[in-house]
Amino acid sequence: MSEVAKEQNAPVAEPKSAAAPAATPSTGKGELIGNAVIAQSGGPTNVINQSLVGAIREMMRSKEIKGVYGSLHGIKGILKEEFIDLRAENPRTLDKIAKTPSAALGSVRMKPTPADCERMFEVCKKHDIRYFFYIGGNDSAETAHIVATQAANANYEMRVFHIPKTIDNDLRENDHCPGYGSAARFVALAFMGDQLDNRAIPGVKINVVMGRHAGFLTAASVLGQQRSDDGPHLVYLPERPFRLDRFIEDVRRVNDELGRCVIAVSEGIADEAGNPVYKSGEVDAHGNVQLSGTGALGDYLARTVKERVGEKLRVRADTFGYLQRCFPEVVSTVDAKEAEEVGREAVKAAVLDQRPSGSIAIRRAATTKTYMVSYEIVELERVARDTRSMPDEFINAEGNGVTEAFRDYALPLVGRLPRYGWFKAKRVG
Amino acid sequence: MSEVAKEQNAPVAEPKSAAAPAATPSTGKGELIGNAVIAQSGGPTNVINQSLVGAIREMMRSKEIKGVYGSLHGIKGILKEEFIDLRAENPRTLDKIAKTPSAALGSVRMKPTPADCERMFEVCKKHDIRYFFYIGGNDSAETAHIVATQAANANYEMRVFHIPKTIDNDLRENDHCPGYGSAARFVALAFMGDQLDNRAIPGVKINVVMGRHAGFLTAASVLGQQRSDDGPHLVYLPERPFRLDRFIEDVRRVNDELGRCVIAVSEGIADEAGNPVYKSGEVDAHGNVQLSGTGALGDYLARTVKERVGEKLRVRADTFGYLQRCFPEVVSTVDAKEAEEVGREAVKAAVLDQRPSGSIAIRRAATTKTYMVSYEIVELERVARDTRSMPDEFINAEGNGVTEAFRDYALPLVGRLPRYGWFKAKRVG
Repeated sequence: MSEVAKEQNAPVAEPKSAAAPAATPSTGKGELIGNAVIAQSGGPTNVINQSLVGAIREMMRSKEIKGVYGSLHGIKGILKEEFIDLRAENPRTLDKIAKTPSAALGSVRMKPTPADCERMFEVCKKHDIRYFFYIGGNDSAETAHIVATQAANANYEMRVFHIPKTIDNDLRENDHCPGYGSAARFVALAFMGDQLDNRAIPGVKINVVMGRHAGFLTAASVLGQQRSDDGPHLVYLPERPFRLDRFIEDVRRVNDELGRCVIAVSEGIADEAGNPVYKSGEVDAHGNVQLSGTGALGDYLARTVKERVGEKLRVRADTFGYLQRCFPEVVSTVDAKEAEEVGREAVKAAVLDQRPSGSIAIRRAATTKTYMVSYEIVELERVARDTRSMPDEFINAEGNGVTEAFRDYALPLVGRLPRYGWFKAKRVG
Repeated sequence: MSEVAKEQNAPVAEPKSAAAPAATPSTGKGELIGNAVIAQSGGPTNVINQSLVGAIREMMRSKEIKGVYGSLHGIKGILKEEFIDLRAENPRTLDKIAKTPSAALGSVRMKPTPADCERMFEVCKKHDIRYFFYIGGNDSAETAHIVATQAANANYEMRVFHIPKTIDNDLRENDHCPGYGSAARFVALAFMGDQLDNRAIPGVKINVVMGRHAGFLTAASVLGQQRSDDGPHLVYLPERPFRLDRFIEDVRRVNDELGRCVIAVSEGIADEAGNPVYKSGEVDAHGNVQLSGTGALGDYLARTVKERVGEKLRVRADTFGYLQRCFPEVVSTVDAKEAEEVGREAVKAAVLDQRPSGSIAIRRAATTKTYMVSYEIVELERVARDTRSMPDEFINAEGNGVTEAFRDYALPLVGRLPRYGWFKAKRVG
């Protein structure tokens, strides 16, 4: 502990160098001594650096972990031996980084080939890396799983942990995922403001929200609603087939009734055959089609509403895009806290529990009314690759909205939302 | 004063009815007794309700102003006699409304015809309306000017004041405009987060920012920069002709140098002949072409960069759209305060100064280093119709960035921006 305390109070000017490779990698009773690498992968979020700093602080406390290395741009940094010495980092810098959006070590979207894995172990051996922590989503869990498996095959003792992160909220085994709460807060606030905007200048407004296969983020559009006629009035999720005729009918009905219509649409909506309503040609290393960073889906839907509901109608579409995941100051405090904790828990699982590999899953206590979570270690393969979708009880029967059960689920995750005011006074007679 | 104090503490349950039409509209010494109408017009902002509530509170203090009426959806509410009784409103509701984004009375984009004006005076006479306050941009000032002129022609005594509002920051006579600081804060924060995102996953990122003819809002993209290589690396404003070849050359150069490139583009960029780079068919009552609510410009530029700089390049485009003007909690405190004050000042000008008409302009003290403003009454025609653009000293010589003079100008308007952290530790050798 004294070593840690000293470290945390070290001035910027005197960075300590990382520990030299230990002669013996392992000492009895499952204790594993060596250096650790941590890296970030996949889409950045507003709180992925909380997980990073949580893990770093926990590693700094550990006697088993000597050097604490940050790999730049995920596993690419391991392949290229691009590490920074995190024990040498100023604690005040760590405080600031924890609150900084995006991935401070850089990120990557890369699925390692067997050749990559071989190269990674070379590097790990060379640097006596015995702990590997990978913060990311299901693809990153898959990478961690591959690394763990290959390490076992190569008889190289290394503890491999995945630390969950995804604004999509689609990791299996988890009640919810770090990153979701803050992105959901952004979406909830955006719709609060935008539907007030739409009250002031009525028309049809379509907002396209991130989420490849899971509708959790799009569903968060309802969380700031206060009045019964607050938008969004229609919510389309990737969990339900999107039928254009049905959509046009819905829009016409709401617009006839309210004289306006605010719509939340997931970027991942697909028809009954599973074909995305909009699709660009670009595909990443994990086989994911590029959906974000273009306004094409929103523009297409807006054009169609204009053509089919009314040429004179004021129809606008916004695609929220990348702002959803890294907007400074729009952070859920619950999300930030949990992100920090999963980082710490992964290190504890590896060092204190001496587990060879795993992921940290967030579980919610079902027995209490108060929101409470616990953390559990789960097998890597249980969160890797496949994702989960919105459960049926969160989606309304018509497939164009969400239920109270979803609100109950999501509201504790986004933090306290502001309440807006409106005139209640009577008309002048 | 006692009447006012009583009014402000009145319980919700007992709304007072508006004053009955006075028999004599004017009492000696320029004192004008009667009812007042206030309305909101043009694009909503995050602080236009501050101006509304500021004006309402000041009117509630006045003995000359009897009924305080809110006209719904701008002058449309006058034409349709849709007024709400604002003196009957609960003061706590007013507190909340001041902090609520968008226009609480509803807005409109409408230029009154001579026939509309005639109808308006009918309504004003019927309700003994002797004060008219119109919160909005240059188009709203034009409307106020028309109303004031027509009222004078019709020999109807009415004081007509424009209260400035525009996120475009393009009203003449003003150092800056209420609404700009908060929208600029949104843009500055969005770029802070997005350029960190772009550091983590490099590529070319194009963000399209609102602003029809003036680049102030797009220019605000630089305000959160901390490191010399922070984005946006290129800023394109409507004040300079946009040349596609030059743009491609700029992007290639930055991307070659940094391995990434973040770009701020105004939605209003136009070629040397003044033709918008992107243009939809829709035109509003004031002759303004629809630019927002579509991702077409950003998508077009992204496609072009991919084609001409590199097919393998990761290129994304986001169009910030309507989120820029009504995002809850992203408010500049300076902006909120000034917005409230211009509302109060307009009422003071009409009631205490007994001016027949005018607009309130914000002036900045040039003599002190500390940011200080004062308010001046200016003639309506001096802010109506025509707008102002970014002065030359705010734009760099290459026409693809902004100057220090712009930063000095804009930083006091957006409020304190957060500082982000980054790793300073050395590489592991």
